[in-house]
Amino acid sequence: MNGAESLIRTALDAGVNVCFANPGTTEMPLVAALDAADGMRAVLGLFEGVCTGAADGYARMAGRPALTLTHLGPGFANGIANLHNARRAHSPIVNLIGDHATWHLKADAPLTSDIESLARPVSAWIRKTAGPGAAANDMAEAIAAAGRWPGAIATLIVPADCQWSEAGAPAPVRAAAAPRPIDSSAIRTAANLIRRHGAKSLLFMGAAALGERGLAVAGRIAAKTGCRLMCETFPARVERGGAMPWVEKLPYFPEQAIEALNPFGAVVLAGAPAPVSFFGYPNAPSMLIPEDREIATLATFADDTAGALERLADELGAPARATAAEAKRPPRPTGALNPATIGAAIAALMPEGAIVMDEAATTGLPFFGASRGAPRHTYLALTGGAIGQGLPCATGAAVACPDRKVIAFQADGSGMYTLQALWTQAREKLDVTTLICNNRRYRILQVELARAGITEPGRKARSLTSLADPEIDWSRMAPGMGVPAVRVETADDLVKQLERALAERGPNLIEMLI
Amino acid sequence: MNGAESLIRTALDAGVNVCFANPGTTEMPLVAALDAADGMRAVLGLFEGVCTGAADGYARMAGRPALTLTHLGPGFANGIANLHNARRAHSPIVNLIGDHATWHLKADAPLTSDIESLARPVSAWIRKTAGPGAAANDMAEAIAAAGRWPGAIATLIVPADCQWSEAGAPAPVRAAAAPRPIDSSAIRTAANLIRRHGAKSLLFMGAAALGERGLAVAGRIAAKTGCRLMCETFPARVERGGAMPWVEKLPYFPEQAIEALNPFGAVVLAGAPAPVSFFGYPNAPSMLIPEDREIATLATFADDTAGALERLADELGAPARATAAEAKRPPRPTGALNPATIGAAIAALMPEGAIVMDEAATTGLPFFGASRGAPRHTYLALTGGAIGQGLPCATGAAVACPDRKVIAFQADGSGMYTLQALWTQAREKLDVTTLICNNRRYRILQVELARAGITEPGRKARSLTSLADPEIDWSRMAPGMGVPAVRVETADDLVKQLERALAERGPNLIEMLI
Repeated sequence: MNGAESLIRTALDAGVNVCFANPGTTEMPLVAALDAADGMRAVLGLFEGVCTGAADGYARMAGRPALTLTHLGPGFANGIANLHNARRAHSPIVNLIGDHATWHLKADAPLTSDIESLARPVSAWIRKTAGPGAAANDMAEAIAAAGRWPGAIATLIVPADCQWSEAGAPAPVRAAAAPRPIDSSAIRTAANLIRRHGAKSLLFMGAAALGERGLAVAGRIAAKTGCRLMCETFPARVERGGAMPWVEKLPYFPEQAIEALNPFGAVVLAGAPAPVSFFGYPNAPSMLIPEDREIATLATFADDTAGALERLADELGAPARATAAEAKRPPRPTGALNPATIGAAIAALMPEGAIVMDEAATTGLPFFGASRGAPRHTYLALTGGAIGQGLPCATGAAVACPDRKVIAFQADGSGMYTLQALWTQAREKLDVTTLICNNRRYRILQVELARAGITEPGRKARSLTSLADPEIDWSRMAPGMGVPAVRVETADDLVKQLERALAERGPNLIEMLI
Repeated sequence: MNGAESLIRTALDAGVNVCFANPGTTEMPLVAALDAADGMRAVLGLFEGVCTGAADGYARMAGRPALTLTHLGPGFANGIANLHNARRAHSPIVNLIGDHATWHLKADAPLTSDIESLARPVSAWIRKTAGPGAAANDMAEAIAAAGRWPGAIATLIVPADCQWSEAGAPAPVRAAAAPRPIDSSAIRTAANLIRRHGAKSLLFMGAAALGERGLAVAGRIAAKTGCRLMCETFPARVERGGAMPWVEKLPYFPEQAIEALNPFGAVVLAGAPAPVSFFGYPNAPSMLIPEDREIATLATFADDTAGALERLADELGAPARATAAEAKRPPRPTGALNPATIGAAIAALMPEGAIVMDEAATTGLPFFGASRGAPRHTYLALTGGAIGQGLPCATGAAVACPDRKVIAFQADGSGMYTLQALWTQAREKLDVTTLICNNRRYRILQVELARAGITEPGRKARSLTSLADPEIDWSRMAPGMGVPAVRVETADDLVKQLERALAERGPNLIEMLI
């Protein structure tokens, strides 16, 4: 068995059985090893950002890492932006990167580059395999590093000669580091704050607090104490609808966020850091909770957040079960197509168990509130602000959950970054319905220009924030990659087409002209 | 004047007047400054790899840097692959990256990342602006660093508050470092080698040796001594056709390259390092020139290579002018569409002054020989092996040379990496004819699999090297981005459509089904 085989078999033994790949010449022995390994699924992306974004979506839904396989420094670099998002989502991922044969590096061949320097900003763990015999063990350690609760990015660089040379057996599975234990004093402090402030206290949640277990107990705590529940602006994953309690989402713009946080005398952090402004603005603070408020950290993302919430519920004497909030789906919208009617249409029609990947930017804002009374579903957001995450992440979520409908709710400007994901959806026959919000502009940047005091932008500023001239026609591009598509221009049309699209299996796309 | 304005005006004063941009919130003051600066052209790319690849193409053709403008670490990361190619091409580029306001960094907002670590592998010069007053001077130094002969990549990170705060006047233009002087002994050594080996000597050329001045004198040296002329496998820019001498291109695969170099007793290097294998293979050497041959470096890429060649010509007593090699265009091909007929069609029809960007991979191989007798034209290659360079580089070349026809000769797999470049071509009405080689596979990887001994690849290996299922339809995708397109399936059809496309102005695309 060569190094590549020992490494791929080690991954399979550890339960890692999906590889999102765009390999090159230096990864050919790994491709052969994937080929030989029964039970390992290889999914081709036509751009590395598709592979890393898909690995993120897969990890968020499956709760375990996939492999990515990319080609030396430049190939890996194409995947960095979505690894940045994955890092912010605390998603477990193992990146496998081929490098030149060890003896060939000194030749400084054209594709030679400093892979470690590129990988460091997005990797919690990096290693370069020193020899073929080390490959299996390196993979076992990479998987353990990626599995460090709740998840981390591990990057393993494997020179081509370490892949093709003879090596030993696969390495045994390593246990991943468990979440940190919660200190009892953190439970007591949080309980005291919530008791003291009651309805003026806020449970601010992220990471595992937004899972089914965390939210169920958060609902019980709210039922007992009247505290309010709020999640991060861009959560990695939220379980919503059905019996899940209503959780507000912190607004994006700092003025609105500060206003939303202002009523609370105390904030208890569960799986999320104290919220900060997405960007710094002149004369605006970084920290969004007013300075004089009491803040307590119940648990960070790296802790057993759901367990901490359960202990907090016990401490507070919360009931064993909270009454589900009464909420209904909105009616099917009619009339003009706009953010409100689009949000309502999705909320009105999405099936039980849907996974909604929201990279809809400004158009997406009304959806979260509108879908409050929708059936049980999962909501995924753009965690790191690196646009181009939605279509790949939806792709990976669909690989992880073949029995659930995935809805990719996608802004046009961001969608253009990694549109190649549609091809992978078509090849893998993934059950993804993509909704493109075609407003022909980087709307958020036009808002930001105005916020920067540029209320009458000149020709170049208008040009740099406009996607018109020429207008992009997604209903032509998507079929070019094997995904059938339609265009809609009214809410009535959207309802009709969305109902049809959701009833079909396999990828399809609806372009919404706003 | 704020920091952003002082910096943009400094660039304009230095003659840097094109900015390939995909800005975000942290670059809004720079967008406003671009808007206010008369004579600065702002070109939007819908993905950062388009911007950096376009800056490379612009630099190769204009001989001076453009700016790129990207958004923090992840936005910049999307441009790294094409900066890797630009670094290998020695193209001058100034990257301008916005960062969070200095005081906001400690908040670790979602888009915060280690930009320097990402930029280092592709940048000869990096600086983070320390205050608004430093911005103008930093830009002047960045431009000087980029102008270091023949060109380098300079990366300037400007925190948002250094952009929006009041600053001083623009900074004066700095002189860029000149090429290193050539040592007389290098001239004499090279002359002696060529005299001694005559027709068994090879002038192996890269960088400025492949410019009009360098090639004219190389032709004179060959006329006098019988030495052969050969260029790197992937040259940044070669002036070809018309009165330019015939220059062979080193083959890609190492066995063929070794065979091509084997006849020569001596190799004189002019602007290129001693050639190395693109990848390392088991039992194959890194260095392609047989060990016992004599090698002399006349000039490296960083030297005044054309000047060195002129002194070498004097030393050898070369004639003042070489007789142009007689060569004719091939006839218009008929019959099946294949690499040979495609190469012949382009060579038969390309107009005088055409710029051919060749990222056609395996399909492109016959073109270089076929176009030997074409009218004067410029040939650009994929220098760093990071695929996805062709469409962006063609875009930038067309911005630099609005009066010349650009032909983007493009493999399908590589083209899918940065297809968003087509939109920029449509917006800017650039005179680019794109020829997509749709063979529905990563053909080079299928060859590499066979070279790695995998002659009967399994299902997954076939799947990871195939672009079929679904087949990509570029003739639908391109119009979706505003570029009219047709499909051809025979050489006769290609000739007809290429003749039409070259006669038009503005972007168009021909998809060749091979």
